[in-house]
This record gives sequence, C-alpha cells and structure tokens, in this order.
Amino acid sequence: MNLANINFDKMDGLVPVIAQDSETNDILMLAFANKEALELTISTGYAHYYSRSRKELWKKGGSSGHVQKIVEIRVDCDQDSLIYKVVQTGGACHTGYYSCFYRIMDGKELHINGKKIFNPKKIYKV
Amino acid sequence: MNLANINFDKMDGLVPVIAQDSETNDILMLAFANKEALELTISTGYAHYYSRSRKELWKKGGSSGHVQKIVEIRVDCDQDSLIYKVVQTGGACHTGYYSCFYRIMDGKELHINGKKIFNPKKIYKV
Repeated sequence: MNLANINFDKMDGLVPVIAQDSETNDILMLAFANKEALELTISTGYAHYYSRSRKELWKKGGSSGHVQKIVEIRVDCDQDSLIYKVVQTGGACHTGYYSCFYRIMDGKELHINGKKIFNPKKIYKV
Repeated sequence: MNLANINFDKMDGLVPVIAQDSETNDILMLAFANKEALELTISTGYAHYYSRSRKELWKKGGSSGHVQKIVEIRVDCDQDSLIYKVVQTGGACHTGYYSCFYRIMDGKELHINGKKIFNPKKIYKV
C-alpha cells in the first residue's frame, strides 16, 4: 500500500497504533507512529513508534531488548489508525507487565489483572 | 477508580479507546472518549465516544442499533488510553464489516481479511 494513503493529518503527523499479540490477540500497548516510524516498521520487520513526550522516533525494545516482531499490519476503514500484530519478546510494559493494560476499572477501584514478568529496575536501570 | 486520575490532557480532553470483542479478543475499532463519554459508558453499560470530526459525544449504535455492551474497561500504565471489552451487536464498522480493521497491509497492496456482515446502505441510509 502507498503510505501516502494513510491519514497522518488528524493528529499532526501521527496515527495511533495498537500493538496486539499475534497468538492470543491480547492488546499489549497503544502508542503512535509517524510516517517514518511506519516505514521503518515495514522495512525492518520490528515495531517502531514516535514518542509524543520525547518528540522522537523509537524502536520498541531498543534499550530493553523487549522487541516486537511484526507478523502483520492492519489498517482501519478511515486509514487513520493501525494494528501491529506482533510476537512480543519479554514484556510490552515499562512497569514489568506483559501488557500495559494490566488493570481493570471496577467502580472506584482498579484491579490488577495481568502477568508481571520482569523487574523493571533490572531492565531499565531506574 | 476516580476518573480524575485518567489523563485526558495529552489530547486536549480526549483519550484513545480500543473496542475489543470480549470473546475473541478481536479489535473492533479505535475511537476517542472525553470524560463525559467515559462517565456515560460506565453509568449506562454501553460504549460512548467523542467524535473529533463532529465535535460531539456519541453512543455507538445510537442510529444503527449496533451497540457495544460493556464487559470490562481496562486502563493502561500511563492512564492515558483505554480498552472497552464489549459484546458487539451487528458490526462495528460503518462499511458493513464486523471490525474496522478488515484490511492487511501487504507491500503496496491492502488485502481484505474480515467479515462483511451487513449492508451499510440499509443501515445508515447513505
């Protein structure tokens, strides 16, 4: 597909990207990509994103080793959001959980419902 | 959970919301919610969003009948994006497909890989 057909204009050059486990269909994280990040994702076969806070392109797992190998990329009807279906090495979340969505809203509470699979202090040296 | 803890500030009052089929874990759509949409989703048990283009709150299925009954709501680590796990009536996509993500990127091509389950001309009277 011609990437010019992806609509990056609604978010000033970005589209939301959902990373999804290709085997379980669990949602791992939500992040953003600009055109360059999407091009690198396609050309390298590993998930790249654009950080809104750091204002820079990043490869998922670039420092942690917790890379996401691309299995397929899906595009929505409006061509303004994407799914990266991936094989996740390690965990997707910087907190140590496999998925960033490890908590369920329950009234005024948040219940943890997810697998913590690494110690972030060892991985990220915080 | 106190909704004041959800970070709506990164997107001028909105957070991205992923609607996910609660049984298959298929991703149905990506949309946005403001605080009021999230409150209505919680209080009514049906998915509500905020339309960036129409600049208004909307109930999914309000005109089509293709409502999304909430099974659970998940929050990510940064508390700036959500998952609505839902039971989808009809299809999520205005094009007639069950999921908005019915196409796979394959080089310069887009392959359709999804179920078309209704005729949008009959539902939306376009």
